[in-house]
Amino acid sequence: MPIQAISWSPSGAVRIIDQRALPEAEITRDLESAESVAEAIRQLQVRGAPLIGIAAAMGLVTGLREQRAASRDAFLMRLEELAGMLGTARPTAVNLRWALDRMMRVAQDTGGGGADLWERLRVEATTIWEEDRAMCRKIGEYGLTILPDGGNVLTHCNTGALATGGIGTALAPVYLAHEQGRKVHVYVDETRPLLQGSRLTMWELVHAGISCTVITDAAAATLMRQAKVDVVLVGADRICANGDFANKIGTYGLAVLARHHGVPFYCAAPWSTVDARLADGDLIPIEQRSPGEVTVIAGRPIAPDGAAALNPAFDVTPARYVTGFVTDRGVVHPPFGS
Amino acid sequence: MPIQAISWSPSGAVRIIDQRALPEAEITRDLESAESVAEAIRQLQVRGAPLIGIAAAMGLVTGLREQRAASRDAFLMRLEELAGMLGTARPTAVNLRWALDRMMRVAQDTGGGGADLWERLRVEATTIWEEDRAMCRKIGEYGLTILPDGGNVLTHCNTGALATGGIGTALAPVYLAHEQGRKVHVYVDETRPLLQGSRLTMWELVHAGISCTVITDAAAATLMRQAKVDVVLVGADRICANGDFANKIGTYGLAVLARHHGVPFYCAAPWSTVDARLADGDLIPIEQRSPGEVTVIAGRPIAPDGAAALNPAFDVTPARYVTGFVTDRGVVHPPFGS
Repeated sequence: MPIQAISWSPSGAVRIIDQRALPEAEITRDLESAESVAEAIRQLQVRGAPLIGIAAAMGLVTGLREQRAASRDAFLMRLEELAGMLGTARPTAVNLRWALDRMMRVAQDTGGGGADLWERLRVEATTIWEEDRAMCRKIGEYGLTILPDGGNVLTHCNTGALATGGIGTALAPVYLAHEQGRKVHVYVDETRPLLQGSRLTMWELVHAGISCTVITDAAAATLMRQAKVDVVLVGADRICANGDFANKIGTYGLAVLARHHGVPFYCAAPWSTVDARLADGDLIPIEQRSPGEVTVIAGRPIAPDGAAALNPAFDVTPARYVTGFVTDRGVVHPPFGS
Repeated sequence: MPIQAISWSPSGAVRIIDQRALPEAEITRDLESAESVAEAIRQLQVRGAPLIGIAAAMGLVTGLREQRAASRDAFLMRLEELAGMLGTARPTAVNLRWALDRMMRVAQDTGGGGADLWERLRVEATTIWEEDRAMCRKIGEYGLTILPDGGNVLTHCNTGALATGGIGTALAPVYLAHEQGRKVHVYVDETRPLLQGSRLTMWELVHAGISCTVITDAAAATLMRQAKVDVVLVGADRICANGDFANKIGTYGLAVLARHHGVPFYCAAPWSTVDARLADGDLIPIEQRSPGEVTVIAGRPIAPDGAAALNPAFDVTPARYVTGFVTDRGVVHPPFGS
């Protein structure tokens, strides 16, 4: 069974698994304010483009619990404040802004005072989560059609149950194949610097009893040359109108290597990942994270004092490298309208 | 000034810098027996194809100190025993066998008893080391011709002073450019799993005052796409007659990416790295190292219990991806005779 990455606590807090601690420890945290949800997103306690959208929507509800007695205007003002704060927690994934915008729209379209608005937002956040679970299954079902029977999948970063409210995006077809008793094996890029592949993807696949092998990112090319990879399946943090997409650093290199070796390369993501306002990938803001994520591991320096490091969290893969986009609307191809 | 990776101790032991401890600690070890030299090679206290050849030759001399009073036959028998043991310490680099074969040949061609043979071997090991220093400078001089002025070099693993008896192979042109006051900047792949790039290359470049930036291996593709890399310079552990060559895992992917982006890709190595007995790269034995190097960092697990991992230490880059081979005989192209 896939893991459940997010839920409501009995007190109405956002309950998460602290993904920084995996695989060494499984720590559940109840985030009791919108600020602590934003902090958890910033610190990657919660990560994965779809999951941070859900977490932000739920964080609004948690943060507005004390505003239930407030007037409509006061409630909306506080909502706008919290949404602004949550919206800047991370810059690249579009799902975060998409979820917050949807929550704002719903509140504005709902009549009544704080109590009415809060109840409506609680329902909406839960709906976003439920829709995400359904979306994951749909991606899984469409993805099954491009998954060769008994095949070897290569994936990057974490796009599974820990990245979504459901069974994942790029891993959803793998979960469904396993559920149906089909043979499948996953090669998992460890995904430096934060090792979401070895720490998170391996953890949830082992947990679900799915056959998997972790490799260093630089070993992927040789596996492809040895014809050990039947399909590359990755997620996306933002997809532009022309099909260029941002995803975890390393994705672009995999796309070039897949093309070079004739291996199909699919990007799996919910339709909400499409940002049709952006014409192409040059317009996607790329988060530059701390050099310390590259030069220090587990508290120990792995580069000399004062070593310079570059740490772009994402890269952009041009649409021409993508065999197809596996979405909850089917396996589709650009251009993508709104 | 580049660091000195190997030398004789006053007692005739092989003095090394323990490269496992870098960059956190600079530990010098005196290896007092051939067995301890073999163990240091196996454990990567000493690594780098040219350096392990030198270390093995010096290790023979150290290990045969007690055989100086022995008869010629007894000395040669022990020499063969120690050479066999040292020769299996690591399987991929050809320099190890090359240096040991040379020592064996010299002993057989020398007359006299244990004392004469030992003295001849001591001279020969020192000569191998001196030749390596000269070889490094020659590679550097030939390499300067392909290094664009003010250019950005991308390199992988460690091919510098810590990998040789001198100023390195792929880093030799960088050291010479710096010595001549030319502007040069090096992007250093961290080189998972053992991080020789961030731990060793960054350490020796920072030590020498050369401008350098460490990146995760998976970030190299994006740097090339952004036209931030003018030339890729890597080393080699074994070069076949047709020009296919083995080098640290990740090299092949860089070669494909360089080709795709129109970036020149050079392999720098001493001529002794050519193994003309091997027709092509399929014949090179590839060392499979422990999965624990992938799943554990600094003593902490980064993958869940029982996670499977693949850990090939090297990959093979076909000759067609190589712009040229920078050797101590010039910038050359295959086929390579004996």
